[in-house]
Amino acid sequence: MTRTVLQSATKTATIGFDEPFCVIGERINPTGRKKLAAELEAGDFSTVERDAVLQVACGAMVLDVNAGVVYNSNPDPNITEPPLMRRVIELVQGLVDVPLCIDSSVPAALEAGLETAQGRPLVNSVTGEEDRLETVLPLIKKYDVPVVAISNDDTGISEDPDVRFAVARKIVQRAADFGIPAHDIVVDPLVMPVGAMATAGRQVFSLVRRLREELGVNTTCGASNISFGLPHRHGVNAAFLPMAIGAGMTSAIMNPVRMVEMEAIRAANLLMDHDPNGGEWIRFARVIEAVEQGASFAEASKDASSTAGSGRRGGRRSRSAKG
Amino acid sequence: MTRTVLQSATKTATIGFDEPFCVIGERINPTGRKKLAAELEAGDFSTVERDAVLQVACGAMVLDVNAGVVYNSNPDPNITEPPLMRRVIELVQGLVDVPLCIDSSVPAALEAGLETAQGRPLVNSVTGEEDRLETVLPLIKKYDVPVVAISNDDTGISEDPDVRFAVARKIVQRAADFGIPAHDIVVDPLVMPVGAMATAGRQVFSLVRRLREELGVNTTCGASNISFGLPHRHGVNAAFLPMAIGAGMTSAIMNPVRMVEMEAIRAANLLMDHDPNGGEWIRFARVIEAVEQGASFAEASKDASSTAGSGRRGGRRSRSAKG
Repeated sequence: MTRTVLQSATKTATIGFDEPFCVIGERINPTGRKKLAAELEAGDFSTVERDAVLQVACGAMVLDVNAGVVYNSNPDPNITEPPLMRRVIELVQGLVDVPLCIDSSVPAALEAGLETAQGRPLVNSVTGEEDRLETVLPLIKKYDVPVVAISNDDTGISEDPDVRFAVARKIVQRAADFGIPAHDIVVDPLVMPVGAMATAGRQVFSLVRRLREELGVNTTCGASNISFGLPHRHGVNAAFLPMAIGAGMTSAIMNPVRMVEMEAIRAANLLMDHDPNGGEWIRFARVIEAVEQGASFAEASKDASSTAGSGRRGGRRSRSAKG
Repeated sequence: MTRTVLQSATKTATIGFDEPFCVIGERINPTGRKKLAAELEAGDFSTVERDAVLQVACGAMVLDVNAGVVYNSNPDPNITEPPLMRRVIELVQGLVDVPLCIDSSVPAALEAGLETAQGRPLVNSVTGEEDRLETVLPLIKKYDVPVVAISNDDTGISEDPDVRFAVARKIVQRAADFGIPAHDIVVDPLVMPVGAMATAGRQVFSLVRRLREELGVNTTCGASNISFGLPHRHGVNAAFLPMAIGAGMTSAIMNPVRMVEMEAIRAANLLMDHDPNGGEWIRFARVIEAVEQGASFAEASKDASSTAGSGRRGGRRSRSAKG
């Protein structure tokens, strides 16, 4: 049974076929968040701090950290991103104790993140593009960390799921050439908006099943893409996530601050027999009740986890190769 | 592609691999509803009338009709059920135009229902028990109607999904001996409460897939069983239904009056590419919006369907053999 092990200084998060679905919080990312980008350029990290604490309170098991801000003062991300990545990771590690996901398309920023992150972070991402394979896979090997593999290549993103599967297989094979095992590759099969492509949902479900059965890899996705452009997106997301989990998807990069999606995931964990004795569901039902009585989701979640004891797995192993 | 065709006097509802999920409204059933049972014994049909109209307004495509009330004045259902079944069906047919599902364990009540129902009703149910096979299958053949096949037999309900699959296969084979095609068998693989049996969800998902791939049959279930005994049942049901649909389930006998489950089904239809151009989802998003602004789900649904036009398929074919 495939297991991708992530670690912070003190905690382990496992993405795996027989594990509860791994929620990777997406909010620490200035892409498309102009206000956050301006704050970061001005050296104001208050939103990052709030997002780190909030996402973990709401149930994120891993936090994605993206420092891809384009400064007005210096538009070259090769210069600006590496120090910002370092700074944000240090900050986040000082506030929360979950493993991180280092998210950048700038190789120097990935390396800065790998040098700074404690434990065993996930790297986001490599693609099937030749230059990315040649640049990122050596870093993955050097730091002995797992990586998200996005199934597009030099020809772009194919609408044909067979092509996307073939790209994923190529990345897994190339990683093997570098000595990186399949259990350290988490494939993102790419989720298209179902409003634009009617077969988008079915494509993902069947791709996830194939990736799991034929390549033996864990999977992830940017879950909210599925509902792009549709009304009442949370309703679409809240059906998509259980369906993807039922098909075998094992993680998603998503916003954990919305209760409806987190509720759908908790219920799906229960239905997949990944919630021993229903303990997590029963605890979550108390959160829902508190929210119905007027608490915010984050407050209610914090209260429930402090009364229920941790329920999280500890882990103090550190990464074997640090560079 | 398997299609099970149900008809009222004027409407067709198709259960099928390439059709939107078929919602069979469960509420016209006095089992466990003491007040309704007492009303029916007293000749008061107001609750039945309300439930018929309400369920169709909320999106039920078929209505289950069960007249299994135990009268205080006469405890023999063989005497009491057939005339009550006739009466309730006449009443319901006078109020709504969806196809019916005739639900009884009393053969004379099934036959009374088959004589009374217009179009092509579904019969609920036959099991793998020898006496039921020998009594119900001839009725199914005689009236040329589809039937729900529940996967228990003379040994009871097995906790082993392989045994339940074998019972379903036996029913399909016995039906074939009577000249009843597999596409007129809708198998209920039996949903256990996940709170009592942790593997209940996975069992159903894998059974549904096998029933579909190996026997080529449509499937149904009493959906709310899955959450029996758990807190916040609707949250569990609302994840279970999309997961079951993703696994290939094509209908459920359920309460359509709760928005959260119906929302999950509409979203799952969209994600399965069973909602051309997302028209049904966009219409449903307006219902959600109206409910958020204070309307009842039934009111909002009625308004949305009257403004959106019918969107339902007509059909005036009548059943070929009526007895």
